[in-house]
Amino acid sequence: MTRFAAIMEYDGANYNGWQYQPGLPTIQAEVESALETISKTQTTVYAAGRTDSGVHAKGQTIHFDMEWNHGLENLIKALNSLLPADIAVKRTFKVTQDFHARHSAIKKTYKYYVFNSPLKAPFIRRYSLRYPYPIDINKINQAAKLIESAHDFQTFGQPTDGTTSTVREIFNAHWEQIGPDGMICFTVTGSGFLRHMVRSLVGSLIEVGAGKVSVEQFKEALEGCDRSKAGPTAAPQGLFLERVFYDPDKFPELQY
Amino acid sequence: MTRFAAIMEYDGANYNGWQYQPGLPTIQAEVESALETISKTQTTVYAAGRTDSGVHAKGQTIHFDMEWNHGLENLIKALNSLLPADIAVKRTFKVTQDFHARHSAIKKTYKYYVFNSPLKAPFIRRYSLRYPYPIDINKINQAAKLIESAHDFQTFGQPTDGTTSTVREIFNAHWEQIGPDGMICFTVTGSGFLRHMVRSLVGSLIEVGAGKVSVEQFKEALEGCDRSKAGPTAAPQGLFLERVFYDPDKFPELQY
Repeated sequence: MTRFAAIMEYDGANYNGWQYQPGLPTIQAEVESALETISKTQTTVYAAGRTDSGVHAKGQTIHFDMEWNHGLENLIKALNSLLPADIAVKRTFKVTQDFHARHSAIKKTYKYYVFNSPLKAPFIRRYSLRYPYPIDINKINQAAKLIESAHDFQTFGQPTDGTTSTVREIFNAHWEQIGPDGMICFTVTGSGFLRHMVRSLVGSLIEVGAGKVSVEQFKEALEGCDRSKAGPTAAPQGLFLERVFYDPDKFPELQY
Repeated sequence: MTRFAAIMEYDGANYNGWQYQPGLPTIQAEVESALETISKTQTTVYAAGRTDSGVHAKGQTIHFDMEWNHGLENLIKALNSLLPADIAVKRTFKVTQDFHARHSAIKKTYKYYVFNSPLKAPFIRRYSLRYPYPIDINKINQAAKLIESAHDFQTFGQPTDGTTSTVREIFNAHWEQIGPDGMICFTVTGSGFLRHMVRSLVGSLIEVGAGKVSVEQFKEALEGCDRSKAGPTAAPQGLFLERVFYDPDKFPELQY
């Protein structure tokens, strides 16, 4: 058996998230079903981030063990021909047996797109949150800066399965304008994230940017470590798992 | 009663085209239902182009007669709040009683997007046709040039309701590369279009660009005036009704 890693892109709109749930459409079920067709054996797939229902991925990393002797390019082709149109494999790698898509990850980047405009936009509605009231980009960035470095993020999420600590380290968090039409994007890179953490942060940060909550109040909410102090959780369709990073010394084969 | 015109944008994926069909979701039914809610009377809406099932619009023009004394900006807001997320009103105008969205149109521009790449692209699949074999942009443009000026386009479509002539005048037709990732776009402006004409032309032109059909054979198909000589009709999700033009001297109020 060889261990393979793959970089995946998917439109999460029609799925109940990454993780397998009996009777519901999930990305994991689609990928495992495609691999079963190829390898004729049941194969378990592990993902770096278990994206929630409706959340997208531009660079999800997965791993699985399989017999396959037809080359990496043909593995991409075989998988893409079996997977539905909204799920794609972009790259495949042979990795060592100690690689684990989730456990080996050292940092992850998420992006969240907000269409900050009173206008309706039929062609981007599936991939962004529309927020009609003006957002002050300087003010929202003042608040975003506060989450950088290690914090207890209890206010903004629950620990994922198998972990109890709610401390995570954020390396970088910032908002920027994308193009002239009101699209703004939040990019956040961290050691890991609690469940719903990015969307909860986005919901709270938007309230700061819109002037409903002050930067000081946001700071108190963060330091309060109390889930009830968070703003609303932003809708899933604006969130993208952008990229997952691994130690280049330990897994040189996976760099791209 | 005042006659209003409006510019609309819609994602056609979930609709059986513009035109009302009993029991099926159509853009016309959605707009008429929203207007009925606003005006409390049944209102008929006329569109410049009766887009087919799955076809999108960035600049569809419509007109309707209604009592409304709350200003054009409030009409946009009222309509957008009632219309589903995939249908938007971008602008509204008061027009004279002799204006008719379809009959007054002097030219229309359509765009067709082809993602010319062997890669799968989950985020653009709803708004383009993926074509995996290389398309020669010079060759496809040689063929596109042949459709410019007045021609009998019988090979590429059927006359729309209420017309019998299959002659249409094309003012400009060209393909261009959009960005570095393999997206190409066909822009065609004409006096009018037969049913399925743009998609049928695109299907035939792609065969020229891919080298399956020569420019000379395309010319013969065009001149043959025989529907059976056309290539495949390209899928609807790549097609956008981009803009509809009216005589600026007759309808100065509608220029934008």
